Amino acid sequence: MKILFENADILLRDRDKFSVLEDGYLAVDGERISYIGSEKPQEDFDVIKDMSRRIMMPGLINCHNHSPMVLLRGVGSDLPLQQWLFDTVFPIEDRLTAEEIGAGSRLALLEMIAGGTVSFSDMYFEPETTIEAVAQSGLKANITRPVQSFDPDETPDQSYRMKEALELYNKYNNSFDGRVLIDFCIHAEYTCTERIAKAFIDEVNDRKGNLHIHLSETKKEHDECIAKYGKTPTEWFNDLGGFDSSAFAAHCVWLEEKDMEIFHRKNVSVIHNPTSNMKLASGFAPVQKMLDKGINVALGTDGASSNNNLNMFEEMHMAAVVHNGYDLDATVMNADTVLTMATVNGAKVQRRADCGELKVGNKADIIAVSLDKPHMRPALDKKALLTYSAQDSDVVMTMVDGKILYENGEYKTLDKEKIYYDIDKAVKKLYS
Amino acid sequence: MKILFENADILLRDRDKFSVLEDGYLAVDGERISYIGSEKPQEDFDVIKDMSRRIMMPGLINCHNHSPMVLLRGVGSDLPLQQWLFDTVFPIEDRLTAEEIGAGSRLALLEMIAGGTVSFSDMYFEPETTIEAVAQSGLKANITRPVQSFDPDETPDQSYRMKEALELYNKYNNSFDGRVLIDFCIHAEYTCTERIAKAFIDEVNDRKGNLHIHLSETKKEHDECIAKYGKTPTEWFNDLGGFDSSAFAAHCVWLEEKDMEIFHRKNVSVIHNPTSNMKLASGFAPVQKMLDKGINVALGTDGASSNNNLNMFEEMHMAAVVHNGYDLDATVMNADTVLTMATVNGAKVQRRADCGELKVGNKADIIAVSLDKPHMRPALDKKALLTYSAQDSDVVMTMVDGKILYENGEYKTLDKEKIYYDIDKAVKKLYS
Repeated sequence: MKILFENADILLRDRDKFSVLEDGYLAVDGERISYIGSEKPQEDFDVIKDMSRRIMMPGLINCHNHSPMVLLRGVGSDLPLQQWLFDTVFPIEDRLTAEEIGAGSRLALLEMIAGGTVSFSDMYFEPETTIEAVAQSGLKANITRPVQSFDPDETPDQSYRMKEALELYNKYNNSFDGRVLIDFCIHAEYTCTERIAKAFIDEVNDRKGNLHIHLSETKKEHDECIAKYGKTPTEWFNDLGGFDSSAFAAHCVWLEEKDMEIFHRKNVSVIHNPTSNMKLASGFAPVQKMLDKGINVALGTDGASSNNNLNMFEEMHMAAVVHNGYDLDATVMNADTVLTMATVNGAKVQRRADCGELKVGNKADIIAVSLDKPHMRPALDKKALLTYSAQDSDVVMTMVDGKILYENGEYKTLDKEKIYYDIDKAVKKLYS
Repeated sequence: MKILFENADILLRDRDKFSVLEDGYLAVDGERISYIGSEKPQEDFDVIKDMSRRIMMPGLINCHNHSPMVLLRGVGSDLPLQQWLFDTVFPIEDRLTAEEIGAGSRLALLEMIAGGTVSFSDMYFEPETTIEAVAQSGLKANITRPVQSFDPDETPDQSYRMKEALELYNKYNNSFDGRVLIDFCIHAEYTCTERIAKAFIDEVNDRKGNLHIHLSETKKEHDECIAKYGKTPTEWFNDLGGFDSSAFAAHCVWLEEKDMEIFHRKNVSVIHNPTSNMKLASGFAPVQKMLDKGINVALGTDGASSNNNLNMFEEMHMAAVVHNGYDLDATVMNADTVLTMATVNGAKVQRRADCGELKVGNKADIIAVSLDKPHMRPALDKKALLTYSAQDSDVVMTMVDGKILYENGEYKTLDKEKIYYDIDKAVKKLYS
């Protein structure tokens, strides 16, 4: 299948910034981008699409998600964190089965696809149901089966979570044409014994795996780790070898200078989740400082239960403005920075070398953002428009590996009504 | 014209909170709400509309706007405040004529109507063009002609701005069936001599007018006022009698305890503009503290040049989450608080006693928010959904004074294509 997009504004990478090619042509041949330029390519195409008044840009990459948690959207909002988590979230999660989790993942996929997300990094149990949904949807995902261990007597041999995580990797890593990658996950320092963490990290390193963790999200977590181990969560993971292969850490709100040095030295990526950090009152991650130190920072929504949606445009906007207010400096975290975090930096986190950027030879993971609505006019500065004015509802096309998954409100791979039916059923069971 | 809405979720006021009447009926007779309840009213209606899977709520009130500044959307984003204002905004504003300003206001109206705003408080020059646009659109607005004076020798008799402001009041206050009210405006302490401010305030108080001002937006402004006058901007306005009739002050980021005491004693309202305060790095207004002291706090977007849109759902969301992060307390600024700020409290600011709340006898200023999209499912907590998950694109109907102005993407009173044409023309003239 060869597709030509014409009359498009195309967001291109120009060294470490974005630039806009106006009125350009972009061709897709199979799953890859085959041409970008100002001249119409002289060849035959199966489909030609007019992209007047649309910005074509790399699809967004949501690097920290718990996709099935859309099932808990809005539940316990405005409660203090501990009460929200222990009295509200955990009791509901205890009742979840694979059936509800699958329905949740499929709803999350509908939301992400419509909002311009082309790939996400997920952390939740019963991940096979999520993989099935991802496979069907056409999206990309880096999936994990999180490891936790609260019992100091549990041995690595006894950990069914470790066993499941390794089996998942064997069965699904690099499956569905490479759309599904299996990463590894230790949920957090405070939810895993050192013994299990160490054993699992050894397994991860043997496989040169990619480790997804929560780290220094709250001051409480950070301080209690120091009280318990005499080291920060970063030092704890690093001392266990957790950063020896490849790793990315969600939140990092309370990172100290010495932690950032470790992140930089060990090439550990930070996943910034500003909406969740604001809503749950975790605090302001020192993101500009991390970027200045050369740390790779990407973006994530966190789960919908602490956000309360999976809207990457909202996340870019939040990241772009809240740090200005906190630092009393309007020049931190500009449009280029957050667009880079949501695309290029996310692809690095997911170890997808041929994604995250519109260029010839890369996978065709492309979204089109409409400039039609009043809030996108006048289009004087398109990077600013995408960052500060755009809504995820402005996305009019989502393409992954050259395949259109969503166009003008229509889903091409998922049955929306069936998914809504399943969600209603799951909710009735969970909350009655 | 009698309209019945059936099968609606209706956001009602229950003492000082909102509650949701599920599967209810709401009737509109002429410009007012004539019935709300669980039983279908037994009378004839001209139109019956099914509102299944829609939340009907009071329309949003944007209490601080510079509507024509959509013409500068995105220009100079990410620059430091002074450079943005003096090197970018002011030179463009110097070139503006009534024609461009009118085009800007009309574009702003398209954006506001589609996003569920039913009324706004505006501050800009050439206000007659904005009034014309408001009159045609069917929206409500509290309009001002701002007074400034930089020349210490200027006398009140010489101030053409004062003259225009008073003429505007005589000509348009309470016009277009009360949809247009004329408020008064002193732009700010730092842009007006004490002499002109005092003289204008006397005129405002003679008319029992409503005064719209900028106040303590930046630390620089606040500190320089103290250095100049030995008093805070709040004390300066108060000592001039500025709070003796009725007043509302935008931003109030740097308000001190003693300022809040004055606000409370004099019934001065605060307009919170969180997106602008974050983006321009002004800081965090102590909003929860103001509310705890009993001060009326409403919401505003500020102009689109410092936001960069006029999206009140985004504004509610921002207000609801950023203070949690700043105060490290997830319980401040909850869903009820921000919904109240955007509706009930806004109507108080605008001195519209029969607006801001869905109840029998009130003006029918109503919006319908769809629960259809994936990000609005499941609908477990509708107040949380409206605050944390909803997008302004979920608005499927905007009604003002019983008249539908917008429905399912269609404008009923404004010619969108003509407005877009005028904006393109204005932009070509301004930026070439």
